[in-house]
Amino acid sequence: MTREFAEFIGTFTLVFLGCGSAVIAGTHIGYTGVSFTFGLSLIGMAYGIGAVSGCHINPAVSLGAVVAGRMEMSLAIRYMIAQVAGALAAALVLLMIANGKADYSVATNGLGQNGWGAGYLGEYGVVSAFIFEAVATFLFVLVILGATSAAAPAAMAGLVIGLTLIAIHLVGIDVTGVSVNPARSIGPALFAGGHAIGQLWLFILAPIIGAVGAGMVCKTGLLDPKA
Amino acid sequence: MTREFAEFIGTFTLVFLGCGSAVIAGTHIGYTGVSFTFGLSLIGMAYGIGAVSGCHINPAVSLGAVVAGRMEMSLAIRYMIAQVAGALAAALVLLMIANGKADYSVATNGLGQNGWGAGYLGEYGVVSAFIFEAVATFLFVLVILGATSAAAPAAMAGLVIGLTLIAIHLVGIDVTGVSVNPARSIGPALFAGGHAIGQLWLFILAPIIGAVGAGMVCKTGLLDPKA
Amino acid sequence: MTREFAEFIGTFTLVFLGCGSAVIAGTHIGYTGVSFTFGLSLIGMAYGIGAVSGCHINPAVSLGAVVAGRMEMSLAIRYMIAQVAGALAAALVLLMIANGKADYSVATNGLGQNGWGAGYLGEYGVVSAFIFEAVATFLFVLVILGATSAAAPAAMAGLVIGLTLIAIHLVGIDVTGVSVNPARSIGPALFAGGHAIGQLWLFILAPIIGAVGAGMVCKTGLLDPKA
Amino acid sequence: MTREFAEFIGTFTLVFLGCGSAVIAGTHIGYTGVSFTFGLSLIGMAYGIGAVSGCHINPAVSLGAVVAGRMEMSLAIRYMIAQVAGALAAALVLLMIANGKADYSVATNGLGQNGWGAGYLGEYGVVSAFIFEAVATFLFVLVILGATSAAAPAAMAGLVIGLTLIAIHLVGIDVTGVSVNPARSIGPALFAGGHAIGQLWLFILAPIIGAVGAGMVCKTGLLDPKA
Repeated sequence: MTREFAEFIGTFTLVFLGCGSAVIAGTHIGYTGVSFTFGLSLIGMAYGIGAVSGCHINPAVSLGAVVAGRMEMSLAIRYMIAQVAGALAAALVLLMIANGKADYSVATNGLGQNGWGAGYLGEYGVVSAFIFEAVATFLFVLVILGATSAAAPAAMAGLVIGLTLIAIHLVGIDVTGVSVNPARSIGPALFAGGHAIGQLWLFILAPIIGAVGAGMVCKTGLLDPKA
Repeated sequence: MTREFAEFIGTFTLVFLGCGSAVIAGTHIGYTGVSFTFGLSLIGMAYGIGAVSGCHINPAVSLGAVVAGRMEMSLAIRYMIAQVAGALAAALVLLMIANGKADYSVATNGLGQNGWGAGYLGEYGVVSAFIFEAVATFLFVLVILGATSAAAPAAMAGLVIGLTLIAIHLVGIDVTGVSVNPARSIGPALFAGGHAIGQLWLFILAPIIGAVGAGMVCKTGLLDPKA
Repeated sequence: MTREFAEFIGTFTLVFLGCGSAVIAGTHIGYTGVSFTFGLSLIGMAYGIGAVSGCHINPAVSLGAVVAGRMEMSLAIRYMIAQVAGALAAALVLLMIANGKADYSVATNGLGQNGWGAGYLGEYGVVSAFIFEAVATFLFVLVILGATSAAAPAAMAGLVIGLTLIAIHLVGIDVTGVSVNPARSIGPALFAGGHAIGQLWLFILAPIIGAVGAGMVCKTGLLDPKA
Repeated sequence: MTREFAEFIGTFTLVFLGCGSAVIAGTHIGYTGVSFTFGLSLIGMAYGIGAVSGCHINPAVSLGAVVAGRMEMSLAIRYMIAQVAGALAAALVLLMIANGKADYSVATNGLGQNGWGAGYLGEYGVVSAFIFEAVATFLFVLVILGATSAAAPAAMAGLVIGLTLIAIHLVGIDVTGVSVNPARSIGPALFAGGHAIGQLWLFILAPIIGAVGAGMVCKTGLLDPKA
């Protein structure tokens, strides 16, 4: 169970720090600071628990690994349960901290949940949100599968993957808050409620499509260095 | 064709995320955030597809590699076609996403295209623009050729090259939006139209001069560690 | 005594640059800039003195190493004394520099000390402050113990640990100013006086709890790659 | 002469990009962006020309290497001449680009020169300026000597040294603009004239003191891992 515990801790960290930066510090650090927090948290965990579980901390990544033929589906499902549990625990602890500020309320300030449309950041439409999440997850999982392949320098993978996540956030926060990770979306949404839950489907479906696409590119050898 | 596909995907990512950060998030993340997005996207791809194609994703880099004697011209031309195609595809997808925001129009907001002169960012003159692009490309390709040489630690090359691209953007966005990469300029310009197309010549010519200069420094051994 | 001298210099650097960035440049660089200064200072020292002492420069890290079974308590105590001495020296030199600005006074502007409650940054309550410091230290020491374990790439550890410290600061400055390091809190507090001293207990106790927890996770093999 | 040419190119890049970010983009990217540009430029060159000359691109670093017993004084002097020449060339090219903006004048906007006192950024006094430059150079050269020693992972040195330079800039721009490098100060000062030349002595003397101190710590074995 060390692998599942690692995925729990890892996803906890990603959501606690990433969403925490938006909720607690968003007005001070802006989109740039929030983007860095998500990516740097992932980097920390990639080396902190990477040797234990591979540090997926994202159901889309586990699914991409299954499609690419690098992981059993049964293990991936255990990973996904641990990831969602970690995200929920993180949202709860974050809520406890945020409640210690006089003018905070989860109804007004949220918990860093994802979304789109009227009232959500840049107010982009659902088509933009879907395209962004699917394309960004596709590129993200492609980088993960490439950077962790035998042909790339193994020591650099975690760093590079986290830096890529920063770039994706810098682009997309105004569109969807950036998910590319269903667990990261589910955790805050369940506590934030309302729209956040009604819009969860997109942050599950679009990342799945992107991840399956990247896994298939890998599986079919379209980016095989030896092809 | 895996190499050409890799160059297509890589240039797509650079333009989709880099120009996307300017178009979607520019008013939030500023020049600093846009600079990081370009550089970090390059880092992601350097490790994601580097083992397949070397991750040039920039015609100036491919040309510099030819001049330095590290690549055949025929392959470089196939790379360049894939790079421009990737940049065009990225501009198209970015346009689709941007159109999902009520007050966006490509005529007003552009697509992250390069430029200079009246109405373009810092309104620098054409001479400044040309010098900046030529000098910055020269230094950029010099770093690439040095960091990927046998005497440098191979695992660090992609990281260092991307960090250098961040520094170049931090300096030059106000001057030209920073190209140092003809494909990155061509992609958005074709959809933005107007001035962006009329000014494309500079973002092809100046990077070529810089890249050829860097390739010649390398070829003639002026920076050969063993000389 | 080279190890203790290294810990003195290392903690001096962390506090001099980290707290210095808040005191001297805080209004210019914001929470984002201060966060980067703390983390990048740690990275510099991790490679500058890491081979000498392991670059703990934080009593919580030394304590976590003891609990994890990687260090003798007697040596850890010598480390802690050197760390606090380094933090005090840094606060003194920083005060000398800050006094060279006409409108600076330590009573008004402080020395980058930690705190919470009325009058301190986001004015979070003591419970939020305690939870944040304990949880953040737990995660920080977990990353340290994982990234420096035999199963992780040794060369990356210092970089990753520093990047994690940046993420933690981006989240928590508004809550406590971020300690996760009793020495970093003690140094400025002794010169700042007042509330800063009265609140020091939290920045000693909460990091201890977090560090002991992380050390125990490591000791009990909950995150052992071979389990 | 390849080593001297490398030092020329390297110092050119550091000053062209670093000072260029302040002159061209300072009002957009702030102290944070300028800090990153200096550090990331150094990282690029560390891997671009490091194998040729070691990428000192700073007379204080070359002097510290001499004191530490790692370099001959005669070679250090040749390095220093190349470094100052590179900084002068960079200031000249930067001036040509800046002049392409309608409202730029070197008398009003400067060239990124260092300074202190009335009219210079935070208006810190000369004592603060001297202490900052001496202490920061001491710590910077200590990191350089440690990170490039046999006991540290060689591949990481350039990255770590550049990240440290970012941290130092984040703290000190308001005090002196941050030199820790006489060549970086001399280049812009000669074109900016006035105060910048009258204050050059500090940006030569203080870095020398800091670098000699760091070199002596190294030479006497105070931070020798094997002591």
